[in-house]
This record gives sequence, C-alpha cells and structure tokens, in this order.
Amino acid sequence: MKAQSSEGVVRFSVSVPKELAKQLDRMAREKGYDNRSLAVADMIRAHLVEHRQNFGDQEIAGTITLLYDHHKQHVQAALTDIQHDHHTAIVSTLHVHLDHDNCLEVLVVRGKAGLIKRIADKLIAAKGVKHGKLTVTSTGRDLPT
Amino acid sequence: MKAQSSEGVVRFSVSVPKELAKQLDRMAREKGYDNRSLAVADMIRAHLVEHRQNFGDQEIAGTITLLYDHHKQHVQAALTDIQHDHHTAIVSTLHVHLDHDNCLEVLVVRGKAGLIKRIADKLIAAKGVKHGKLTVTSTGRDLPT
Amino acid sequence: MKAQSSEGVVRFSVSVPKELAKQLDRMAREKGYDNRSLAVADMIRAHLVEHRQNFGDQEIAGTITLLYDHHKQHVQAALTDIQHDHHTAIVSTLHVHLDHDNCLEVLVVRGKAGLIKRIADKLIAAKGVKHGKLTVTSTGRDLPT
Amino acid sequence: MKAQSSEGVVRFSVSVPKELAKQLDRMAREKGYDNRSLAVADMIRAHLVEHRQNFGDQEIAGTITLLYDHHKQHVQAALTDIQHDHHTAIVSTLHVHLDHDNCLEVLVVRGKAGLIKRIADKLIAAKGVKHGKLTVTSTGRDLPT
Repeated sequence: MKAQSSEGVVRFSVSVPKELAKQLDRMAREKGYDNRSLAVADMIRAHLVEHRQNFGDQEIAGTITLLYDHHKQHVQAALTDIQHDHHTAIVSTLHVHLDHDNCLEVLVVRGKAGLIKRIADKLIAAKGVKHGKLTVTSTGRDLPT
Repeated sequence: MKAQSSEGVVRFSVSVPKELAKQLDRMAREKGYDNRSLAVADMIRAHLVEHRQNFGDQEIAGTITLLYDHHKQHVQAALTDIQHDHHTAIVSTLHVHLDHDNCLEVLVVRGKAGLIKRIADKLIAAKGVKHGKLTVTSTGRDLPT
Repeated sequence: MKAQSSEGVVRFSVSVPKELAKQLDRMAREKGYDNRSLAVADMIRAHLVEHRQNFGDQEIAGTITLLYDHHKQHVQAALTDIQHDHHTAIVSTLHVHLDHDNCLEVLVVRGKAGLIKRIADKLIAAKGVKHGKLTVTSTGRDLPT
Repeated sequence: MKAQSSEGVVRFSVSVPKELAKQLDRMAREKGYDNRSLAVADMIRAHLVEHRQNFGDQEIAGTITLLYDHHKQHVQAALTDIQHDHHTAIVSTLHVHLDHDNCLEVLVVRGKAGLIKRIADKLIAAKGVKHGKLTVTSTGRDLPT
C-alpha cells in the first residue's frame, strides 16, 4: 500500500474522474462532513457492512421495519408467532401506532446473517404486511473507526 | 482541491484508519476490482445515486439506524442535541447496548421527506458514528393492501 | 420560609427522629448519593410526581408495563385495538419477547392524567394480561432541578 | 451529622432548588401536614419501606423509567456508562424526546432482582436525573393465568 502511516491512520491517494471528485466534495459538504476523508471513510464502512452481509455465517446486527394494518385478519398474531419462534435473535421490537389503522414495527435483530435474512423474509412475506425492509449494520466489533 | 489533474482525472489523497484501509483493499479484491481507485469511484457513484434521490414534500415514516462507540468523545451529546432540535419529527429512539463499547440506536421518524433526509445526513455525518442508514417507508395511508 | 437563598438554591432545616435521620443517611449512601441533600431533593420530586397524578387535568408522561402470554386467544388484538383508539396519547410501544410464550410490552404515554389512567386500566384489565402497571412521571417542565 | 439532638429528635439542614422548596411547602399544605418536617419525615419513611423490600436471587423482568434534562453536564454520558457496565441485564432502552430539554428514558431490564435494584439505584441517584422509578414485573414463567 502506497500510504504513510501515523498513529493508526494511513494516507493513500486515489484517482477518479474530475467531475466525480467535484460531486463528492459537494455531497460531503451537503451532508455536513468536516472533510472529504471522513466522508470517504464512512462510505468504505457502509460498503463493508453491505459486502459482509452476503456471508451467511457473519454475525450482524440490524433492524427489520414492517408497515401493516393491524385490522387485517391475523396479521399481528402471525408476526408475533414468527418473532417468538426466533426470540433469541430478536432483541426487542418498537411499535408505533401511526394512526387508527397503520402500525410501524421496528425489530432490532442480532445473529448470523443467514438466519436474520430468513426471519426478515418470513415477516415481510406475511399476509397483511404492506411494506417491509431489512436494514443491516454491523455489531461494531469488526468496523474500525 | 490539492490534486493533479490529467485528462479529466484527478488524484487526491484521503486519511483513514489503518485497519479500514486494509479491509477496503480486501473487499476490492474480493469484488474483483483491478485497483483501489476503481473501487472507491464506484462507491462514490453509489452514494451519489442515493443522495440525489428526490426527497420532497410528501409525508413519510421511517427509521434511522446508527452504530457508534459511546466512548468516543462527545458523540452521544452531539447525537442527542441534533435529535432534540428535531424532536417533533423523531417519535422515539430505541437504544441497544451491543457490548461494552458499541451502541445501536434506531430512531423512528415521521415528517416531510426532505426534512427527514437532512436529519439523517446530520446524524450519520456526526464524528464517531461508524455506520448509519435511513430506511424509508410510508405512513401507510397511501399504500393500498 | 426560614431558609437562606443563594443562586436559586435554598437551605432549610428539618427535625426528624434521630434514628430516622441515621437510616436516611445509610439509605442515601447505599443508593449512591453524593450527599443527603441530593437524596432529599429526589424524594421531594418523587412525591410531587405522585401527588400531582391525582389531578386529572395535569399533563403527565409515563409508562404502562404489560406482561402477557401472546398465545392466549385474542389478547394481542385486544391490546392493539385499545392502543390504536388512543394513538395520540401513546408515543410508542416497546415489545420484548421474553421467551416462547411471554411478552413484555412497555408503552410510553403522554397526556392528561385522567385519560392516561383510564387507558392503563383498560389495558391491565384485558383478558390474558398477567400483570400490568402504570408508572407515572412528569413531562419535566414543572419539576425543578 | 452536624445536627443538634434533643430528646431523640435531630435537626439537620438540606439545600434544594428554591422552586422545589416552594413546591414542597405547597404539597405539604395540600396534604394537611402541620409543618414541613413532618412531611419530610413521612417521605423518608416511605422511601425506606421501598428500599428495604427484599430483592433477592429470583429472576425478574421490569423497567427503569428516568426523566432528565439532557443539557445538564455529563448526565447522559454517566447514564450510558452505567448502562454499558450492565449491558447483559439491560435488554434495550427506549428514549423519547419530550421537548427541547427533557428526555424520558425507559430501560427494559432482566436479571436477578438484587442486581436490577442496584442498577436502578445508581441510575436514579445520578446527578441530573429529575425522577426515576423501578417497575418490577415477572418474567411470566412463574405467573399462572
């Protein structure tokens, strides 16, 4: 690596199209980063998190977001059954009553990537769920700052 | 920008934690990139696509997931300040203590898409946040089942 | 009030049985207070919170804790119906799957004391709820520190 | 104790915020106490009763409710440190931003009763916490329905 190391930090250079570099700088400013390096470091970490979730054995943390109408026959019972079947992987669930009909449920999950994906798939496929999404992050141990 | 331009390409340098640079190189190899610059350029483009998504006036619900080390100087105070500045848009926040160092924080948010995006950007760019993600869903009213 | 004021703090003296004072000091130590005044101030605030919840019009914040077996016929649907009927008073609900059968649900509530009590009564009385409790605190505005 | 004893009674002085002293006097009047000392003595006794409740080895679940002003110096860092020291007993924490200043934090806890009580004591005694309360329930296993 052509990089100067100092106290755990390395400096390396990259070549990118001029216009892309300009847009990177504008985006970093708009997002509120103090400098370009901090923005690039955040991008690398974000891509590492996504890259690793493809390995089923990797321990991950994350959230499963579910939107549903609690009046739909049995949707809530179905969701709770699935969740209790996997209660060791589901740390806790935050439920927000959006209005008289709509529920937003956010599960904090933790476990092997493969298992977490299967749980998310089951929940999102459950009848009555309008929209669902698995958001993967890391447990933080393998993500340097 | 302190960078040498040649034929539409610029060269600039970034400083990142040593271990992060190593993991970047491993990931770039695993993904089949010829060199690190090509990998970083792709990351920038991917983030630009997300950043440019049109966040307008429509009312959305969603979550902001944040991973951070609570020992990092001031990170928690900074996050709380930003959250209280926008306390009407943040319904509630679920905090999970992953281990002695790492915190997973999930904010349930609700409001105009543009505002939610700006809040997420600020939180994710805050120094000490290792990984953050905005997950958008609907308030359910405009989503038929 | 026979008390010396200095920068928003007043000093006043109280007479209590000798043995009670000794036990107060021991308890303050055991609970980790730096000094007796801090312990007494906390006690006063705790009693103010309880005292005020008797006024139905007072704005309070608080939690409703519910323990139930989600397999019991309809308990969850009943709880959700009640919660959605009062979705403006219920900020959000945290659900923890204790084991295959038992659920712990914590509702964060906010509103007039009288209404909050009625909601808690209904939820706790619902068939299938093993144990329930309303914990009242203040919204913080009227509680000096 | 710097206090004058006479016939089994001791006199000692405490320092509390001015506004809190005023509210104490109003509450004492409303509750029908002849003087402030009698009201304070009753509060101490009430807290002793709670403090002495036998918290043993049995496994409990419960919540710790905390109200605080996040602007108070270091209160949040202190609370997070205590929580991470006991992260195995704290399942998750729900945080609600009540207004620009006040935070309501609800911890779902699980573990041996004695440990849970000690964690609650530490958190509630932390400087800057306006009001705190431990609400105990069962894990549901030993509670027949």
